[in-house]
Amino acid sequence: MQPEASNATTPARNSRATRKLPSAEERLEELGIQLPSPPTPFGSYAEAVRSGNLLFLSGMLPTEGHTAKFVGRAGAEFDVETGRQAARLAALNGLAVAREYLGSLDKIKRIVRLGVSLATTEDCREHPKIADGASDLLQDIFGKDKNPSRLINGVVSLPLGTPVALELILEVA
Amino acid sequence: MQPEASNATTPARNSRATRKLPSAEERLEELGIQLPSPPTPFGSYAEAVRSGNLLFLSGMLPTEGHTAKFVGRAGAEFDVETGRQAARLAALNGLAVAREYLGSLDKIKRIVRLGVSLATTEDCREHPKIADGASDLLQDIFGKDKNPSRLINGVVSLPLGTPVALELILEVA
Amino acid sequence: MQPEASNATTPARNSRATRKLPSAEERLEELGIQLPSPPTPFGSYAEAVRSGNLLFLSGMLPTEGHTAKFVGRAGAEFDVETGRQAARLAALNGLAVAREYLGSLDKIKRIVRLGVSLATTEDCREHPKIADGASDLLQDIFGKDKNPSRLINGVVSLPLGTPVALELILEVA
Repeated sequence: MQPEASNATTPARNSRATRKLPSAEERLEELGIQLPSPPTPFGSYAEAVRSGNLLFLSGMLPTEGHTAKFVGRAGAEFDVETGRQAARLAALNGLAVAREYLGSLDKIKRIVRLGVSLATTEDCREHPKIADGASDLLQDIFGKDKNPSRLINGVVSLPLGTPVALELILEVA
Repeated sequence: MQPEASNATTPARNSRATRKLPSAEERLEELGIQLPSPPTPFGSYAEAVRSGNLLFLSGMLPTEGHTAKFVGRAGAEFDVETGRQAARLAALNGLAVAREYLGSLDKIKRIVRLGVSLATTEDCREHPKIADGASDLLQDIFGKDKNPSRLINGVVSLPLGTPVALELILEVA
Repeated sequence: MQPEASNATTPARNSRATRKLPSAEERLEELGIQLPSPPTPFGSYAEAVRSGNLLFLSGMLPTEGHTAKFVGRAGAEFDVETGRQAARLAALNGLAVAREYLGSLDKIKRIVRLGVSLATTEDCREHPKIADGASDLLQDIFGKDKNPSRLINGVVSLPLGTPVALELILEVA
């Protein structure tokens, strides 16, 4: 409200303000990313449920509408790069759900948990690289110091035959 | 307490009251469902742990006592309908644990998270239909607007050889 | 502050004090356990994220540094006892991360959730025994009445080819 006045009394705050990081919505625009239409349930569940300051999202898949854009397993039908793209699309779907629920990504204080289920063969060793397709996107938008905790599982199958499903728990303002 | 009086001042509230939905316990009775005996741990863990307003349940299996009532995988030993029944039984066990811990299902404000692990072959595509065996039961009891967020994984094996294990996180009053 | 004085007015409290259980850090020393160096991320994520009173850890593996100390699956390359040792090492890594983040294990009020992902063959039935390798350690340190809720999944692959990955959600003071 009174930047010059607060300047005098809180120099640290001001110096932070001058280096102010872009908000998640601003960053999304900088990156030229348009979020897809948020997915809708294909069963008896909700895409997002809030409890206190935590927002729990349903498993996010690399879909458009109810159609899988990627089908197959890492180490078999898929290489790492394709897996990364699938993970990125699933994360974009998660952000679309969050924005629809919250009104703006700027309401997200932090992504607390990112769980990554990857359909793989038993000899897959590339999980972290594939999962980074989702993690790198989130880091680009929210910043490195807001990175989530991460779980990875190599599973045998996922809904619609997709190679990746994401678990997301967000802390909201 | 004073329905006529509050009628005059809060018509919306009263109109909601006249269409009042049955509570979870009332709904269970309407549906003629008797909850099974709650499962007990077969290892060094607790069936339910509360932190703040969240109640975390252990993985719920389609068991009676420590015996699996269903053994096998979807897409191999099991068809969709049998998988649905297994998912439903696991959900009933979860409700039994919740009632034992809380005293009444009416203390549940919402099921925040339903995770469904299904033992499947790699070509399974029926996950949502099978998972709905649990989700439909919860929707019947708690109502559609209280549906949980949902995660699904197709896994290679589960404890006791069961085809389904449920993760449940509840918000409690 | 004034033990004799409070002695007179709160005998129950005092009697509990005389039978006082060791703290988690004291118990660790009694057991002669030295925690390993906490693991560091090998991707775009954080090892621990706090939201309110919950501390979410990333998936804990049986590693030293970024190297897997166990590689293989239960029921194939591994017997139960080796799986238990792997689960125990992963739990020690989780405690190391928690201590680094919190300063002391005594800040942990309870482990709310222990998720155990085990790389298995499809006919594995030993999940609970293997998972107890982690659970028994936690029970030894925090006490039986603080046992966590537990989820188990038999997965097809895990990062670095390890046989076990742990999910940990802690309630902190």
